[in-house]
Amino acid sequence: MSVSEIAELQALIRDFADRRDWHRFHNPKNLALALCGEAGELAAELQWLTVEEAAELSGDALIRLRQEAADVAIYLLRLCDVAGIDLGSSVRAKLAINEIRFPAPSAG
Amino acid sequence: MSVSEIAELQALIRDFADRRDWHRFHNPKNLALALCGEAGELAAELQWLTVEEAAELSGDALIRLRQEAADVAIYLLRLCDVAGIDLGSSVRAKLAINEIRFPAPSAG
Amino acid sequence: MSVSEIAELQALIRDFADRRDWHRFHNPKNLALALCGEAGELAAELQWLTVEEAAELSGDALIRLRQEAADVAIYLLRLCDVAGIDLGSSVRAKLAINEIRFPAPSAG
Amino acid sequence: MSVSEIAELQALIRDFADRRDWHRFHNPKNLALALCGEAGELAAELQWLTVEEAAELSGDALIRLRQEAADVAIYLLRLCDVAGIDLGSSVRAKLAINEIRFPAPSAG
Repeated sequence: MSVSEIAELQALIRDFADRRDWHRFHNPKNLALALCGEAGELAAELQWLTVEEAAELSGDALIRLRQEAADVAIYLLRLCDVAGIDLGSSVRAKLAINEIRFPAPSAG
Repeated sequence: MSVSEIAELQALIRDFADRRDWHRFHNPKNLALALCGEAGELAAELQWLTVEEAAELSGDALIRLRQEAADVAIYLLRLCDVAGIDLGSSVRAKLAINEIRFPAPSAG
Repeated sequence: MSVSEIAELQALIRDFADRRDWHRFHNPKNLALALCGEAGELAAELQWLTVEEAAELSGDALIRLRQEAADVAIYLLRLCDVAGIDLGSSVRAKLAINEIRFPAPSAG
Repeated sequence: MSVSEIAELQALIRDFADRRDWHRFHNPKNLALALCGEAGELAAELQWLTVEEAAELSGDALIRLRQEAADVAIYLLRLCDVAGIDLGSSVRAKLAINEIRFPAPSAG
């Protein structure tokens, strides 16, 4: 059976942390602070742009957003790894809940 | 070729938004606000716990953290979809950059 | 000499925490998580509004934003109280730094 | 009658923005993104510290936290100014609500 892409990324991040002995920092509270830090950096990339400018990023601005999105993902994936959360199935389960909470008008 | 897990989740989220005509809300700035909102809700789940309590979540507390992690993922995946960011390769690229910025003591 | 408004609000918040024996929860890391949580709730109030709608809030939407702004302030004031930070003079000092970092086009 | 400390800080921040013609950037949604950005930077200052280390900050680490707290305050004060929110009375009103929601064990 093939390993999922998410599990694969988590293994890369775990290995990265392992080789630096960073487990001791990676508890859920610390990782939640780091996640908020990175979500904030991502927000800061877009804060003064118009809606239109933010929707048409290119060049350096897109590269920076890409890096911030990666940073958010890294801490989210690490948090889930540490807390024993299967992120892929959690997303599917949440979408199923949302499907009921927010019924689609007709469904296409 | 098989579709990646991340692309698959993005397709589910895109379809969810499509059927509700929510594209118009899903621009990068709005999604960044939503991402910060969900990162904040995740933080709130852990805020008053001790480091030890947060590291041994179970039962309802773990289910709530799981749901918040899913919400963060949903908006991050949607933002990347809308902005044309390949999240999986961005994570790999960022880890490669971090590998240079933070050299491992010995490396395995 | 009169007590500053900020110090007065901090005394109210401190007293509120004291009467519930909530000091033990109010360390800087927990308060930073709470601050991010409330900043996220404030963001969520505005996330799907247009720029124009968000700039002309009234009624319940304004009341909710008001409450979220208060929550952010409460945790920020509490964090500063706990960490021994004089918030008023910190703001003045930061504005002085910004005055140099971002010179105004003309007027001084 | 004396102007409140909060109103005074808001006037300084407003003047700072005015002299740079930054009104056009300072709508509630942009300021909410900026607030989340600064709350995230504050979180990042504490993320890898132990609870004890974060509770005993001094020197450069305290100066950095002080600056981040000021940045959060600046955007919160500016947002309230722009949205017509009286932050001082909002905090008092929210504490009054919390007094009812979370009754103190005994003392009044």
